[in-house]
Amino acid sequence: LNKIDTIQRASQAGPTALAPVEDYLAELHARVAAISGGKPADYIPELGKVDPELFGIAIATVDGQIYAVGDAAVPFTIQSVSKPFMYRYALQNYGRLAVLEQVGVEPTGEAFNSIVLDEVANRPFNPMVNAGAIAVAEMMLGETQDERLANMLELFSDLAGRKLDIDQSVFNSELATGHRNRAIAYMMLNTSMISRDPNEVLDLYFRQCSVKVTCRDLAIMAATLANDGKNPLTGKPVFGAQYVRDMLTVMNSCGMYDYAGEWAYEVGMPAKSGVSGSIIAVIAGQIGICVYSPPIDKAR
Amino acid sequence: LNKIDTIQRASQAGPTALAPVEDYLAELHARVAAISGGKPADYIPELGKVDPELFGIAIATVDGQIYAVGDAAVPFTIQSVSKPFMYRYALQNYGRLAVLEQVGVEPTGEAFNSIVLDEVANRPFNPMVNAGAIAVAEMMLGETQDERLANMLELFSDLAGRKLDIDQSVFNSELATGHRNRAIAYMMLNTSMISRDPNEVLDLYFRQCSVKVTCRDLAIMAATLANDGKNPLTGKPVFGAQYVRDMLTVMNSCGMYDYAGEWAYEVGMPAKSGVSGSIIAVIAGQIGICVYSPPIDKAR
Amino acid sequence: LNKIDTIQRASQAGPTALAPVEDYLAELHARVAAISGGKPADYIPELGKVDPELFGIAIATVDGQIYAVGDAAVPFTIQSVSKPFMYRYALQNYGRLAVLEQVGVEPTGEAFNSIVLDEVANRPFNPMVNAGAIAVAEMMLGETQDERLANMLELFSDLAGRKLDIDQSVFNSELATGHRNRAIAYMMLNTSMISRDPNEVLDLYFRQCSVKVTCRDLAIMAATLANDGKNPLTGKPVFGAQYVRDMLTVMNSCGMYDYAGEWAYEVGMPAKSGVSGSIIAVIAGQIGICVYSPPIDKAR
Amino acid sequence: LNKIDTIQRASQAGPTALAPVEDYLAELHARVAAISGGKPADYIPELGKVDPELFGIAIATVDGQIYAVGDAAVPFTIQSVSKPFMYRYALQNYGRLAVLEQVGVEPTGEAFNSIVLDEVANRPFNPMVNAGAIAVAEMMLGETQDERLANMLELFSDLAGRKLDIDQSVFNSELATGHRNRAIAYMMLNTSMISRDPNEVLDLYFRQCSVKVTCRDLAIMAATLANDGKNPLTGKPVFGAQYVRDMLTVMNSCGMYDYAGEWAYEVGMPAKSGVSGSIIAVIAGQIGICVYSPPIDKAR
Repeated sequence: LNKIDTIQRASQAGPTALAPVEDYLAELHARVAAISGGKPADYIPELGKVDPELFGIAIATVDGQIYAVGDAAVPFTIQSVSKPFMYRYALQNYGRLAVLEQVGVEPTGEAFNSIVLDEVANRPFNPMVNAGAIAVAEMMLGETQDERLANMLELFSDLAGRKLDIDQSVFNSELATGHRNRAIAYMMLNTSMISRDPNEVLDLYFRQCSVKVTCRDLAIMAATLANDGKNPLTGKPVFGAQYVRDMLTVMNSCGMYDYAGEWAYEVGMPAKSGVSGSIIAVIAGQIGICVYSPPIDKAR
Repeated sequence: LNKIDTIQRASQAGPTALAPVEDYLAELHARVAAISGGKPADYIPELGKVDPELFGIAIATVDGQIYAVGDAAVPFTIQSVSKPFMYRYALQNYGRLAVLEQVGVEPTGEAFNSIVLDEVANRPFNPMVNAGAIAVAEMMLGETQDERLANMLELFSDLAGRKLDIDQSVFNSELATGHRNRAIAYMMLNTSMISRDPNEVLDLYFRQCSVKVTCRDLAIMAATLANDGKNPLTGKPVFGAQYVRDMLTVMNSCGMYDYAGEWAYEVGMPAKSGVSGSIIAVIAGQIGICVYSPPIDKAR
Repeated sequence: LNKIDTIQRASQAGPTALAPVEDYLAELHARVAAISGGKPADYIPELGKVDPELFGIAIATVDGQIYAVGDAAVPFTIQSVSKPFMYRYALQNYGRLAVLEQVGVEPTGEAFNSIVLDEVANRPFNPMVNAGAIAVAEMMLGETQDERLANMLELFSDLAGRKLDIDQSVFNSELATGHRNRAIAYMMLNTSMISRDPNEVLDLYFRQCSVKVTCRDLAIMAATLANDGKNPLTGKPVFGAQYVRDMLTVMNSCGMYDYAGEWAYEVGMPAKSGVSGSIIAVIAGQIGICVYSPPIDKAR
Repeated sequence: LNKIDTIQRASQAGPTALAPVEDYLAELHARVAAISGGKPADYIPELGKVDPELFGIAIATVDGQIYAVGDAAVPFTIQSVSKPFMYRYALQNYGRLAVLEQVGVEPTGEAFNSIVLDEVANRPFNPMVNAGAIAVAEMMLGETQDERLANMLELFSDLAGRKLDIDQSVFNSELATGHRNRAIAYMMLNTSMISRDPNEVLDLYFRQCSVKVTCRDLAIMAATLANDGKNPLTGKPVFGAQYVRDMLTVMNSCGMYDYAGEWAYEVGMPAKSGVSGSIIAVIAGQIGICVYSPPIDKAR
């Protein structure tokens, strides 16, 4: 977390109180850039090749203004930041009750890749840990795998307001090394928490994690959440307003894994982190924020 | 939860929107009273003797108005509803950092009496599970045990706006049967999570759980939280405004144990339940709510 | 266990003390046949189709005599009874130290299909639980999968003294439903406890479990162990005498899963059970025993 | 283990094959004394004060001969080596079935001070881990605590063939620091695995662990086991012959904690270790062995 943590705390005091925002962001960026520590994730080998000095901040308002500083246009893979959007998609298409039957909303106190499953309720604890996110990935609509992949890409493209693509080399790297996720998927298949072929579900899940975005894109995607599901840039209603609260609640309690409690305590904004080094946060009705800095700590 | 769960959902729609409040409460009470299910806790034998038909609701506003319906004046023991107040007291007297060193703020996904300790951080996960509450109980100020007991009673009396007492028979029952809490305390002593004699710490903890309150009292105590620490009835500033947010955050993420995530999702108010059948909830700046109905479910 | 448990206790008193053995076995069979309880495993659907009334006992001496009673010629799949033989094969071909690096020899107190891995030692706890048996299956020699399958079948054929085959329908059933074993294999791949493609390793493992044997075959195979590795029927030295003690030690401490301690206490012979309802036991230097009765209890 | 491990392996080759035994032992002692590594336990502070260079070996035969070399007459506290004798005592006085209801015989794969309890069977896993040994300590006969303490001391004195005493300073040190054992005892009281006041049970348990013995004493005690319960020195039948097998079986599968499997595999004699640095081993019908060397490894 490191820089990101500090910046989120700084931003609490608040950009909204300051004008011009650009000056504030530039000053903040300069101040936080001095912080070092952590290192880029390398358990997916392709991720380890990133420049650790990259550092960008972007803020998008619900009325479509975007403020960015630093490396806000550098592409990286979305990784776990994709999870709340996929969850929101599932809620919209299946309804709250049906989704709750497949995936809980309880924080686990466990790390992101925990194999602990709620075998009493027969579902993963929440959609922010890998197990839950894999179960959610199975809910992407489409008759064929190609259709599901296309629908997934369209979802993220609509959220960003521009056409997004998969980073093939990261996807291949995930596919080649994702044995733990495969173990999780087979355990869930074994207890009927998922029902389709794990390889197919993981193919979509790994692609979803490999969608290429920029810091600016993620700020817009977060602002879409802040804006009741309507993209503030394109005006397209990606999600209906319904379920936005559900999604933010789960981001709030589970988005930062086993640091979620301390995050709520220290920062207090619904947020989601990803191993490529980005964090998004949402101030409902106001702004979406993205901070990007590849070095991460163990809380991811 | 049962009745309480339903009532909280109902109350979201809201008392503030309705006048007169009394009519609304009476109607709500009548509607919810029809719900049955659950049963009173009896692992502390004295608790099992309660009349399961008791049912009260009380609401206190930050400007000191109190609305109550049903069995809102029947005394019962506060049990775990005492935990957030003790935590708030510790924050005030030791500061956030010192308290965080002793007790974390992470939800555990585990039940209230879980023996799982965060042995990496060497502290209980959060102050709402028994382990954390016992560590917090050790922080009550006082040179002697008598002083600490007096301070604890004074704290709760100030919060309720009237002199409160211990229910001796419940206290004796807890003392006689609290072996699991004793095991937790000795494990914490073993890893230096607590440092005083567990018997002394548990003596205070069991007494704290045995403080006699009514539904009306708890509504006022919750309203004191909603009112930035100032008792709306007596005007006494029991807590400084500082740390109220910390406390509500922890109630929000951990107050309902392993149902906390679903509670946040379904109800969304910072809340705390206790085995004697009460739940308090806080709407910051507006009201404190207490619902009392002895039958409980397994989430407690 | 049921019948088997009783019979093993009875057989302690001892066939060697009795002549003629056939009379003893017939009497024992009649007495034990009256015991009911347990039911055939059906988590592999094909296994659930067996006649639960089948019941056979066979004893083979190290000098090649065979005594059999009841359904001792009915074929069934060997299942986990294959594990000690595969372990013995690995010891012979890799040596004790190399095998110990891949698979431990500690009982786990856990069930047969436990996912608990010894992540400190980075190896499965022992070769009798599925995780360890899968790691051992990877050690079958052969350049290609076909060669490895042929070597495996040859091993079991040599042990039984006749050409054995795979039960294709059980193999297909295992392949279709073995998701938990797949999860275990991917977890081991993830921590480098195994290094080959899990699907290939499991293909061999599922085939190994699907080798068709009779009660008589297994008695001969057990007698081969009792006879220092030399098949008492054919005279062929299937294993060198070396490592027989290692293998019996592991059967003794781990062969009966989480009932191993009680088995050692109650029966005291190195033994191995399988879900298709057979148990083998070995009296070193004297006899191999097999009891077959499909209904099993939860200890398997 | 270190020295002890090596010596046990050396002794497999065998003292019985060698004459004169004294020469063999002296040579063995000299060879093994060169091994260093491990360090004395200090979690009980009093134990940490021992001279780490102490090293003794003693062997007692079932016909009463004693061979000793090195520091075989230096007193130390018996610690966990007391456990099998207490278990044997319980078997004798309550019978196998009654004892099995209170304490299982399954190895756990867990360390000596594990808090894992078999909550399905509602009993500790085995009498060699602390939880089981505490449950066994409760079974010491006697109307009063004084009587029970006297009976316990008499038992160990009979086994050693001389009057033994408690090391008060070690006992006090255990009493002052045994918080983990207290936690275990209260958890067992909570689930009715024990029924008496934990403080009383632990008072006896800590005293039992603090009985002062020498290497020579323990060899005689082990030889008493090898001799079907009759002390080979005094001729007194301390235990009936019955249950000796049960006891050795449990020592075999559980005596060396989470190293038990590897011990059986590498050494193969029923054995029991203690944190003060002694290990006893039994060759039924032949000899009892004790090796004493305070530095221990993590397997204890």
